[in-house]
Amino acid sequence: MQTAPFIVIEGLEGAGKTTALGHVIDWLTERDIEFIQTREPGGTPMAEQLRELVKAIRDNEKVTAEAELLIMYASRIQLIENVIKPAQAQGKWVVGDRHDLSSRAYQGGGRGISDTLIEPIRQAVLKGFEPDLTLYLDIRPEIGLARARKRGELDRIELEQMDFFNQTRDKYLSIAQTEDKIETVDAEQKPAQVGQQIKTILSNYFDKG
Amino acid sequence: MQTAPFIVIEGLEGAGKTTALGHVIDWLTERDIEFIQTREPGGTPMAEQLRELVKAIRDNEKVTAEAELLIMYASRIQLIENVIKPAQAQGKWVVGDRHDLSSRAYQGGGRGISDTLIEPIRQAVLKGFEPDLTLYLDIRPEIGLARARKRGELDRIELEQMDFFNQTRDKYLSIAQTEDKIETVDAEQKPAQVGQQIKTILSNYFDKG
Repeated sequence: MQTAPFIVIEGLEGAGKTTALGHVIDWLTERDIEFIQTREPGGTPMAEQLRELVKAIRDNEKVTAEAELLIMYASRIQLIENVIKPAQAQGKWVVGDRHDLSSRAYQGGGRGISDTLIEPIRQAVLKGFEPDLTLYLDIRPEIGLARARKRGELDRIELEQMDFFNQTRDKYLSIAQTEDKIETVDAEQKPAQVGQQIKTILSNYFDKG
Repeated sequence: MQTAPFIVIEGLEGAGKTTALGHVIDWLTERDIEFIQTREPGGTPMAEQLRELVKAIRDNEKVTAEAELLIMYASRIQLIENVIKPAQAQGKWVVGDRHDLSSRAYQGGGRGISDTLIEPIRQAVLKGFEPDLTLYLDIRPEIGLARARKRGELDRIELEQMDFFNQTRDKYLSIAQTEDKIETVDAEQKPAQVGQQIKTILSNYFDKG
């Protein structure tokens, strides 16, 4: 039996991930599909502790790019093995707020960690596991961050400089353009258009002819 | 200018690491050498949080071998960059209670994580950084654990089965036998003999003719 699909929402701060998740959930609910939601980093007791630890603003210690990357993957493997795979095996779809593409974009693009570090970790940790569909919400960092900053307190990673977010976006775009199962959604469109585009993509991917 | 040396004590629970650290400190103090002490996992605010998190006994979640490994290396890179290298650069020797060899022995040997995962992470994270001398205290697990259990509460890793510790010891021994800068000390000798052997090794390595 095939396992249930794993759908991921990706994008910069302020791209509208939460609203997009709502559209995915509406689409699933309309079809009476059972699902669970995840967020990364986090989603298990241990992974949530890792999330808190990596996002904390530290005045007393520099967080190395390598430690940040390793913590993201430690969190991810806990979530995959303990939550995502068991849900899929029970026939429940999984809707994720961020997944592996975030590490490639933020730590690889934003922090500039080379693929010679990221790729062996990815391959060894994920062992080929991947989402069935990733919806990448594309937005210019200056637009997205202005939205995110209005919402309140920012964490350690969200306090980075504009260069960091530009590099992150470039990496998101280049991966989305070259790899399968990643669809780019223009997140600067009007909200109704974003919602319509997301539902069309979902139907194209998953509604049987 | 050459940086100050990094000396590491390694071995199974109950091998006598704390006593051995005392011998190293005596040897340094006799020579008026300035030093700092580290322990792994841990040794920075963030790394100590990672230590607590990885050693916690979890009734509600299975800790994957991969997550454990990644957390150990995240802790290690924070310690190397923020504590060990700065101390060495100031001419302070560093005396470590565990370092990289523990990950290779416990996660590689005990947990059976393959070198195809460990080696790329090691190389990418450590970038050739290594101790100037590692003192591996060799003891049979049944002897060491009997000592450790007398001392009180055991953490998640210390509660493993005997097979785990036998595989860990085998890995320690095989690495110690094939690599430079690792000296094996028979930790089942009388305490006075262990101390004498450690001081002799230190003098051979570091006392100038």
